[in-house]
Amino acid sequence: MSDTVLEQTTSLQSPRTTVKRLAKRAAYDRNTINAILDEALICHVGFVVDGAPVVIPTIHTRVGDTLYFHGSAASRMLRSLREDVDACVTVTILDGLVMARSAFHHSMNYRSVVVLGKGREVVDRDEKLRVLDALVEHVCAGRSRDVRPPNEAELRQTLVLAIPLAEASAKIRTGPPIDDEDDYALPIWAGIIPLSLTPAAPIDDERLVAGVATPEYAARYKR
Amino acid sequence: MSDTVLEQTTSLQSPRTTVKRLAKRAAYDRNTINAILDEALICHVGFVVDGAPVVIPTIHTRVGDTLYFHGSAASRMLRSLREDVDACVTVTILDGLVMARSAFHHSMNYRSVVVLGKGREVVDRDEKLRVLDALVEHVCAGRSRDVRPPNEAELRQTLVLAIPLAEASAKIRTGPPIDDEDDYALPIWAGIIPLSLTPAAPIDDERLVAGVATPEYAARYKR
Repeated sequence: MSDTVLEQTTSLQSPRTTVKRLAKRAAYDRNTINAILDEALICHVGFVVDGAPVVIPTIHTRVGDTLYFHGSAASRMLRSLREDVDACVTVTILDGLVMARSAFHHSMNYRSVVVLGKGREVVDRDEKLRVLDALVEHVCAGRSRDVRPPNEAELRQTLVLAIPLAEASAKIRTGPPIDDEDDYALPIWAGIIPLSLTPAAPIDDERLVAGVATPEYAARYKR
Repeated sequence: MSDTVLEQTTSLQSPRTTVKRLAKRAAYDRNTINAILDEALICHVGFVVDGAPVVIPTIHTRVGDTLYFHGSAASRMLRSLREDVDACVTVTILDGLVMARSAFHHSMNYRSVVVLGKGREVVDRDEKLRVLDALVEHVCAGRSRDVRPPNEAELRQTLVLAIPLAEASAKIRTGPPIDDEDDYALPIWAGIIPLSLTPAAPIDDERLVAGVATPEYAARYKR
């Protein structure tokens, strides 16, 4: 990422999204936040029900400066969130285990984003169709052009929510363990175990029409 | 898992943890819930701040029927949660992308657990030390016996929280895509792309004492 690009990005920092601890790991520029949201396959959505927190995993997608997710029109989460209530959407990508010489300095390398905002139900038909396409593309780039698009009944059964990407923060840890200076003399192994979400070879559905080949985007799936 | 084992496990179902949608994917027995909690490297903790939800990723561990997590004594999340307030802890393991013939039936294979409960600060020194050991073991089995244990200053700086595993639910999707009967005749590829969090070869810390070998638990790291 060039400095020029970085300078062009806007900040999503607000008093609520300002990272209080380990502030040197924090970032607020839109490019950093978008890249993490786009790479993460799923998010965890937090909302409040009868004063208590509920956290549900779901698939998201980003279109421009808006974060979207979808689900059944019968979903409690989606029905709660379309009432203009506060949501917190968090994504986390694990990059590795950080093994220090002391138990205390063990950590993980990760990239996470926290988005705060209120949900809005997407009612415009064109926006809804665009988002449903984008959700498929978020999971697997190239897939949306091959599939049967939603019909009217499916559109009615699907609720799509939008949250503006206006208040957010990223938190990133990279690099080796940081031990106390005295501990570096200890004969204890320390280092990183890199981790990544890795695809295996696709498994054809048993009822595939004869002669249908596995598309490249599945055979060479990559985040 | 044999039927005998299943019969022995207790149920963590409650009105609040009863899965309302796709109930056939739900499970409430302790063995199923424990296995998912133990395999997941991290959790997402939800709590309420000034009426709004906050969701933060962190490392957890399970000891018997208690879920623990830890962090800096300065952490806003941990300070909030020790005040006997409601928390929701969610873990999600992604097992694969489910590519159906229709956009609508695209899905993911996953195993997730939602735990509801109130936090309690662990103040007993022995329990605290056991949990800190268990946290290291949760991330990497075999690691805790090799590392320098926490000293008194580190213990003071670390806050450990407990949540009883009394109200929880698991939700699991496995298997191939389920398409509408009419769609099976479409010449569209469908199937599963399996996913797993995969370790790469460990990277030694640059300041490792000469002659210290990479331990087996790191060289052959496995969840």
